[in-house]
Amino acid sequence: MKKVSDIGERGLIDNIYTQVLGMQDSEFLFDDCAVIDLDHQYLLVTTDLTFQKTHFLKQMSPWQMGWFLSAVNLSDIAAKGGKPIGLVTALGIPNTTDERVVLDIMKGAQNCAKHYGTQILGGDTKETEDITLCATALGLVDKKEFMPRIGAKVGDVIGVTGSLGKAAAGYLAVKNKMNDQRSLRGLFEPNPRVKEGRLLAQQQRVTCCMDISDGLSSSLYQLQQLNSVGFCIIEERLPIDPGLQKLGGSFSCNVSDKAIHFGGDYELLFTSSQQDFSKIQQAFKDIETSVTCIGKVTKSLDIVLDTGEEIRILDDKGYEHFTQKSAY
Amino acid sequence: MKKVSDIGERGLIDNIYTQVLGMQDSEFLFDDCAVIDLDHQYLLVTTDLTFQKTHFLKQMSPWQMGWFLSAVNLSDIAAKGGKPIGLVTALGIPNTTDERVVLDIMKGAQNCAKHYGTQILGGDTKETEDITLCATALGLVDKKEFMPRIGAKVGDVIGVTGSLGKAAAGYLAVKNKMNDQRSLRGLFEPNPRVKEGRLLAQQQRVTCCMDISDGLSSSLYQLQQLNSVGFCIIEERLPIDPGLQKLGGSFSCNVSDKAIHFGGDYELLFTSSQQDFSKIQQAFKDIETSVTCIGKVTKSLDIVLDTGEEIRILDDKGYEHFTQKSAY
Repeated sequence: MKKVSDIGERGLIDNIYTQVLGMQDSEFLFDDCAVIDLDHQYLLVTTDLTFQKTHFLKQMSPWQMGWFLSAVNLSDIAAKGGKPIGLVTALGIPNTTDERVVLDIMKGAQNCAKHYGTQILGGDTKETEDITLCATALGLVDKKEFMPRIGAKVGDVIGVTGSLGKAAAGYLAVKNKMNDQRSLRGLFEPNPRVKEGRLLAQQQRVTCCMDISDGLSSSLYQLQQLNSVGFCIIEERLPIDPGLQKLGGSFSCNVSDKAIHFGGDYELLFTSSQQDFSKIQQAFKDIETSVTCIGKVTKSLDIVLDTGEEIRILDDKGYEHFTQKSAY
Repeated sequence: MKKVSDIGERGLIDNIYTQVLGMQDSEFLFDDCAVIDLDHQYLLVTTDLTFQKTHFLKQMSPWQMGWFLSAVNLSDIAAKGGKPIGLVTALGIPNTTDERVVLDIMKGAQNCAKHYGTQILGGDTKETEDITLCATALGLVDKKEFMPRIGAKVGDVIGVTGSLGKAAAGYLAVKNKMNDQRSLRGLFEPNPRVKEGRLLAQQQRVTCCMDISDGLSSSLYQLQQLNSVGFCIIEERLPIDPGLQKLGGSFSCNVSDKAIHFGGDYELLFTSSQQDFSKIQQAFKDIETSVTCIGKVTKSLDIVLDTGEEIRILDDKGYEHFTQKSAY
């Protein structure tokens, strides 16, 4: 009898999808969201479960836990190009908890939802031993604007929104007991790329898209499997967060390694043709967030990093549950 | 500083809705589902969180836990007259769990979903210490068919689908170590009233509706508060489950007390005019499930039980989280 620790999160999900749900032929299998066909639109549904003990560092405030809860779900909606239309929350709370803590969690969740143009619509509360937070976000996207995980073509370029390593910088700050608010916010108050996802979707130029919450390398490995392609990432092009540059320098850690593997950055990773990428970049000039071309889709199935000096295989070191494999 | 145990589940939810979410004016406040306006339809969303330690008796199989998870969520969709269009699940699993247990949970959840014409579309898995199951169900209902919790009118009659006390009978069987499969299924494998909810909704004769998962008395108290009316329940009309009648007799417990207070029966409680109730009953002749008139809506704000010998106040003894108040 296999334990879930033997097969890991992705192995378990694979087996649930294929052995139980019979979804092996689903076009949306392993997408960021579940997808329901509503005439000319798709209803996007995503759910995320977190536990105080295992998912939240003790430095996080209840408000930040709530923000985080909404943000990670909205990021999945964003990755499919969706417009968020609401969230519901399910809270497990020990009965000795101060009411203020619960209200602050919900305030953080609602503030994040409102910031991204939507709201918490209701939910469930239950008594439990460790604070447990589950949220489900809903979104709508026109079918022709939906950005799937499958569709990357050899010759496409790889784009990423914003910067890499904000969460890693926050983690360095925590670990070194630095009260660097900007870095801490990068880890504790991620900004889901809702506006950016809509902008990408509206242009209908993206061949595949996902968020990189599990880390850039982990996300590339997931796309590689789904698309049967390889990727070549050019190290000097990585839009590394200035906070990580600074802190990484102070603590002499490998900055690009952290930016590539750490995870917790809720940016969008996508592919498009070279020509379309220029047009996407043009469209992004009107908003604050940048998009950067970080490499290209290759026929060879390897995922490699071009450091300028050498081209080496990029390891899959992102976070995966049930296994000990984690960049933390 | 108040603990959540001081204010109870409903107090906490009240405070979340009014102090954080600003929903005091929402027409759907305290409804069984969150409601999103989609042109001529409502999208119904409901979420439910359960923990193995606190919500599942050890006699329950993993398959039954999964069935239960889908059933309780589908019941909320049913209570609003909705047609289920999908569920997502979020599982927290200790990493020493046998994979088979997880697959069996998901199989139960999927079997229940399919039985009611829908399916599990995806979800999340995380590592945790105690098996934690969260599901979110989605449904659609035409606006004119939506059955709200608010709308009961003085003079209306009170209807209930199916029978009362199936779960109580199951609990008696567990407590007395009886291998009475029919009773155990009543507790562990509830049948959400999806078809019945649609039938009620299509007729557009129901003035208010909710499910009675927390128990009949608790549900009546919730409707009383929302509708500013009272209820008179006629004891001899209660459609008490034959299994409870039998077991209750063997263990000399007050059968109607259990049927009224115990909870865990996923039946629909509704109100309608006397005239409309007859037509509803007519429509139910075509399906297996009965509907029974169990009393009437009164101007006096009391909730009373007419035992034939006396009319006495019915206590609110349904299950509420965070407090010690429970009929279990």
